[in-house]
Amino acid sequence: MSKQKTFAVGIDLGGTKTLTAVVDITTGEVIASARKRTHAEKGQDFVARLTTELAQAAIDAANLPKNAPIVAFGIGAAGQIDRASGIVVDAPNLGVKDMHLAKILSKQFGKPVRVGNDVEVAALGEFLYGSGRGFNNFVCLFVGTGIGSGIVQNGQMYTGMSGTAGEVGHMIIQAGGRVCGCGCRGCLEAYASRTAITKAIMAEIHHGRSSVLADDAVLQINEGETIIRSGLLAHAIAQGDALVIEIVTEAADYLGYGIGSIMNFYNPEAIILGGGVIEAIDLLFERAVNRARNTALSAPALQTKILRAKLGDFSGVVGAACLGAGAAGYQFPLS
Amino acid sequence: MSKQKTFAVGIDLGGTKTLTAVVDITTGEVIASARKRTHAEKGQDFVARLTTELAQAAIDAANLPKNAPIVAFGIGAAGQIDRASGIVVDAPNLGVKDMHLAKILSKQFGKPVRVGNDVEVAALGEFLYGSGRGFNNFVCLFVGTGIGSGIVQNGQMYTGMSGTAGEVGHMIIQAGGRVCGCGCRGCLEAYASRTAITKAIMAEIHHGRSSVLADDAVLQINEGETIIRSGLLAHAIAQGDALVIEIVTEAADYLGYGIGSIMNFYNPEAIILGGGVIEAIDLLFERAVNRARNTALSAPALQTKILRAKLGDFSGVVGAACLGAGAAGYQFPLS
Repeated sequence: MSKQKTFAVGIDLGGTKTLTAVVDITTGEVIASARKRTHAEKGQDFVARLTTELAQAAIDAANLPKNAPIVAFGIGAAGQIDRASGIVVDAPNLGVKDMHLAKILSKQFGKPVRVGNDVEVAALGEFLYGSGRGFNNFVCLFVGTGIGSGIVQNGQMYTGMSGTAGEVGHMIIQAGGRVCGCGCRGCLEAYASRTAITKAIMAEIHHGRSSVLADDAVLQINEGETIIRSGLLAHAIAQGDALVIEIVTEAADYLGYGIGSIMNFYNPEAIILGGGVIEAIDLLFERAVNRARNTALSAPALQTKILRAKLGDFSGVVGAACLGAGAAGYQFPLS
Repeated sequence: MSKQKTFAVGIDLGGTKTLTAVVDITTGEVIASARKRTHAEKGQDFVARLTTELAQAAIDAANLPKNAPIVAFGIGAAGQIDRASGIVVDAPNLGVKDMHLAKILSKQFGKPVRVGNDVEVAALGEFLYGSGRGFNNFVCLFVGTGIGSGIVQNGQMYTGMSGTAGEVGHMIIQAGGRVCGCGCRGCLEAYASRTAITKAIMAEIHHGRSSVLADDAVLQINEGETIIRSGLLAHAIAQGDALVIEIVTEAADYLGYGIGSIMNFYNPEAIILGGGVIEAIDLLFERAVNRARNTALSAPALQTKILRAKLGDFSGVVGAACLGAGAAGYQFPLS
């Protein structure tokens, strides 16, 4: 192909890990990437330094030819963003408040920088180079530590009136139910996120239920909080662990109720499911899809496509790179 | 005003009653209207005849000047519509299947006819001449026998991929809860519609709770089904009836959870609430608004406007007339 390659740097700044990549934005290909734990507890300056260092690490690893400059930087950050000014307004999971991330990066690298929300940016990645290609109206839903979604409307990212659209994790699916991190009871996130699955499993283990996860050695403890990684859940299910199967099945049902609710209310062409939990656990994906189709009314149940995200861990960095490049004037040829 | 008046006929074909009106579509003013019970049980031909007769009755009552012709007919019907062909595909509440309503009316009146869904058309009425004026992205939610909504997106009606967007009544808010008419458990409609409120009140009365509604004489019985009209609920509340206050408060909380979920997921500029139950019962409206604001995340909770619909009973006929006129080429000046 004689098509001119064009590169941008994408940064996925999450509460657990930060991932950077140099992306060929004409193809969505990740040329090189770098990742580290975020260590949000070390404070805002640490996070800023980590971000610039990891971006440089990806650029160094990409070893780009001299005539292929980087046109822009893009960032998806897990928090509330002022998109116009590139400020991370409030990001509890990153320990960050009013951080001028665009300014910091543009000063360091001398390139245009655009900041977006992590989920929105990952949805953009799936839209341009993943499972969202060819759809004009879809919801891209990510299940991990929390649950969020990005909405593509008429071929554009839709961020809503206050820039917070897509907060599907805080739709009420069990009124008066479990307490959620947001302070409400019964949010989807309190039932179907990896955090919720972990809490439910640990509670049962504390009550004496047996499980391969009952052995402390297999669990990761982070500042007093138990983390069960998605791969470990998948492994326990593969071993036939009754407790994990039960809790994951329950979480999948709730996820399906949430997806079915979106299908009924918003009636998109497609729902795209991504995030660590979805990627790792087939049981969760398949059960949630069935439950969603049973919950939706007949027309959306039959017609809405429900797909897995295609870019895996790279949805965020590819989307972030494209966000930056798009803001800097690059035109994406939409299929 | 020297502005040329332009008229269209709007028809709101509902399971309980059918309402027709001649509307000045330059102002949204209802010039004359007619209404009758639908009597869906009398069959499809009866409903077709009722529709044409009631349309004629409104035209006769309007007594329009000779130089002011009617440009179009529009219909909002409570069911699944094939908009392109003007067919009511399936409308269980109307006892209608594959009814060529556009053909029937255009043959009778010799005018262009457009058919839409009742809730969509009512939302269009609020958009053009009601509380939706000035908003580009909002959800217009109607609470009556059931619960439905119309979505305005970028200043256009959004009907979704399969034409069924806005089915907010079938969002799950109490997973595993009450059985809904759709066959699922825990739908919003099973908790906050007038039907749900009626069932909950009657169940408590059967269990021996006292209420001003326990006197059969005040209730309306329709084919073995008790109907408590919204005005009667409002009257019982005004009398301090503890049972009705309790059940309506509970319904309002569920409605608030549903509205809050939409605010979090879709983040519209405004939520507009209409329908008989909302119109008649201040307690329901006020409690639902408070619950919705407590359920929504801080940005949408602070910024989303929550308003009552302005056109009351006439949202549907005004919207239907405008739908017909718009399809016939009339351009609405949007504020």
